[in-house]
Amino acid sequence: MTEVAIGIDIGGTNTVFGIVDRKGRTLAEDSIPTSQHEVVDTFLVELTKKIDETILGTKEDIKLKGIGIGAPNGNFYNGTIEFAPNLKWKGVIPLARMIGDAFSIPAFLTNDANAAAIGEMIFGKAIGMKDFIVITLGTGLGSGIVANGELIYGHDGFAGEIGHTIVVPDGRLCGCGRSGCLESYVSAPGIISTVKELLDRSDTESSLRSIDPDTLTAKDVSIAAGKGDKTALQAFEYTGRILGLALANSVAYTSPEAIFLYGGLSLAGDLIFKPAQYYMEKNILNIYKGKVKLLLSGLNDNNGAVLGASALVWKELR
Amino acid sequence: MTEVAIGIDIGGTNTVFGIVDRKGRTLAEDSIPTSQHEVVDTFLVELTKKIDETILGTKEDIKLKGIGIGAPNGNFYNGTIEFAPNLKWKGVIPLARMIGDAFSIPAFLTNDANAAAIGEMIFGKAIGMKDFIVITLGTGLGSGIVANGELIYGHDGFAGEIGHTIVVPDGRLCGCGRSGCLESYVSAPGIISTVKELLDRSDTESSLRSIDPDTLTAKDVSIAAGKGDKTALQAFEYTGRILGLALANSVAYTSPEAIFLYGGLSLAGDLIFKPAQYYMEKNILNIYKGKVKLLLSGLNDNNGAVLGASALVWKELR
Repeated sequence: MTEVAIGIDIGGTNTVFGIVDRKGRTLAEDSIPTSQHEVVDTFLVELTKKIDETILGTKEDIKLKGIGIGAPNGNFYNGTIEFAPNLKWKGVIPLARMIGDAFSIPAFLTNDANAAAIGEMIFGKAIGMKDFIVITLGTGLGSGIVANGELIYGHDGFAGEIGHTIVVPDGRLCGCGRSGCLESYVSAPGIISTVKELLDRSDTESSLRSIDPDTLTAKDVSIAAGKGDKTALQAFEYTGRILGLALANSVAYTSPEAIFLYGGLSLAGDLIFKPAQYYMEKNILNIYKGKVKLLLSGLNDNNGAVLGASALVWKELR
Repeated sequence: MTEVAIGIDIGGTNTVFGIVDRKGRTLAEDSIPTSQHEVVDTFLVELTKKIDETILGTKEDIKLKGIGIGAPNGNFYNGTIEFAPNLKWKGVIPLARMIGDAFSIPAFLTNDANAAAIGEMIFGKAIGMKDFIVITLGTGLGSGIVANGELIYGHDGFAGEIGHTIVVPDGRLCGCGRSGCLESYVSAPGIISTVKELLDRSDTESSLRSIDPDTLTAKDVSIAAGKGDKTALQAFEYTGRILGLALANSVAYTSPEAIFLYGGLSLAGDLIFKPAQYYMEKNILNIYKGKVKLLLSGLNDNNGAVLGASALVWKELR
């Protein structure tokens, strides 16, 4: 009998779930479309049906111990999704209770970046670490902060929004309505904005000029940088510089043993890690110099979001 | 029989200690000069002698349970003072062990701002709170961060240096050698620098012009502001603005229920609280708006540093 948890990663477009054992091995995985469901009730019907089918289709003899959910604007304390701008379901959705009731099993919910941090703690490179930070890079910049071996949820369940610390006073307009947030520089849309600014500001030849600005992706920038495109390289250097400065500040809060970068831009490797590491060390307070490891997440090779969500179950049932 | 702890606050000039009971009542208090001791050994001899005398002079029947020490550059994990720039004793001093051995009793050491945070938790206004931050304002800006009911020490014992987060990129030179640290704006020397800049930049009449710039103190600025001096008021407004912006960022890390200001500039009341509160709310991410209390420390009326140091004993012996 293999003890398993179900990890569910709710995204704006798709919801992916997997059956994962205690060692982080995924026995089965599937997905349903999120955006097709105008209300959460029909979403729940399709999701539970698909999960039931997946459980029945599993060849191993399994014992389901719990369900972990990573969701945008997820509140761990309440098990709710609260006013998520990227989802169609409005208001406060008590999703952990709804899914837990459907399967008569404990269900836990947190935001996606917190789930990634717990995944790193249980299955990734942070095993045994008491103090670390995970930064998730994608359409936004999410973060999960662990101190004293526990995830920091804060008094309201919404701690860990490093992407919305202001790093450039009166800087770029952010999706949150304020100016100069880290996320508006260090994210897929952030690096694209940087490329556009660089292209506008000079006449440097660049392969990126031949791409329609409206369809330009972070991956295009990454590929161009890999081929030595000067503008693309500059954009990574600038992105890494802002990230490094922000991480130097982060260290002054919780003095982590390591900071992990997960997903998206982190997969660009040295292009982002080198400047981030350099500017973190350059801007860091003396007492922390040379002490903090900047590492690629240990979950990147797998479906980290599902793994992270499933890890929440093992963390909470401990 | 009253159970007591000894709280010791080590400052660059004086070391103050007190005998404090579990309720935060100070039974006796005394001090010795720190700066007269070129080496820690003679300091230890004078301190233990004075503490012994104070214990003997106590009228109540007491039982000493432990000793708590707040010290600059204090490392909780090791019980050491490490390379403190404001003390004459060089290198790493294992002071908790030395004092503990002298009295054959458990001794704990942390930095002064962490001690203030634990004091707030045990004796102050943070009783029952799991997530809060204490900012100590004095010659520097110290901070103690509590999350999940525990002080965040970080992997190396040096977490909680909010004073050394960079809030103005390429801003004022800080004592730490970097530029734009919060402490270089929000501290006694910080507001004095601001006053000097404001006086240099305009011809506005100000009572502060009649004070020798080399002897100008934060208290002078506070008194002038109380009398309506325009430059002094501007200086407080600017200091509070920078503090408010920094606190908005702090909230995005640990989402505290409250932030407490302790000592020094915090005693200027509305002069600092009003702009700090206003700019914190103005710069804060939407989800946190109106949720975070900005409060005067509950320890300000007493000898907070000694109380905080003694609280460390009750926290650790729990």
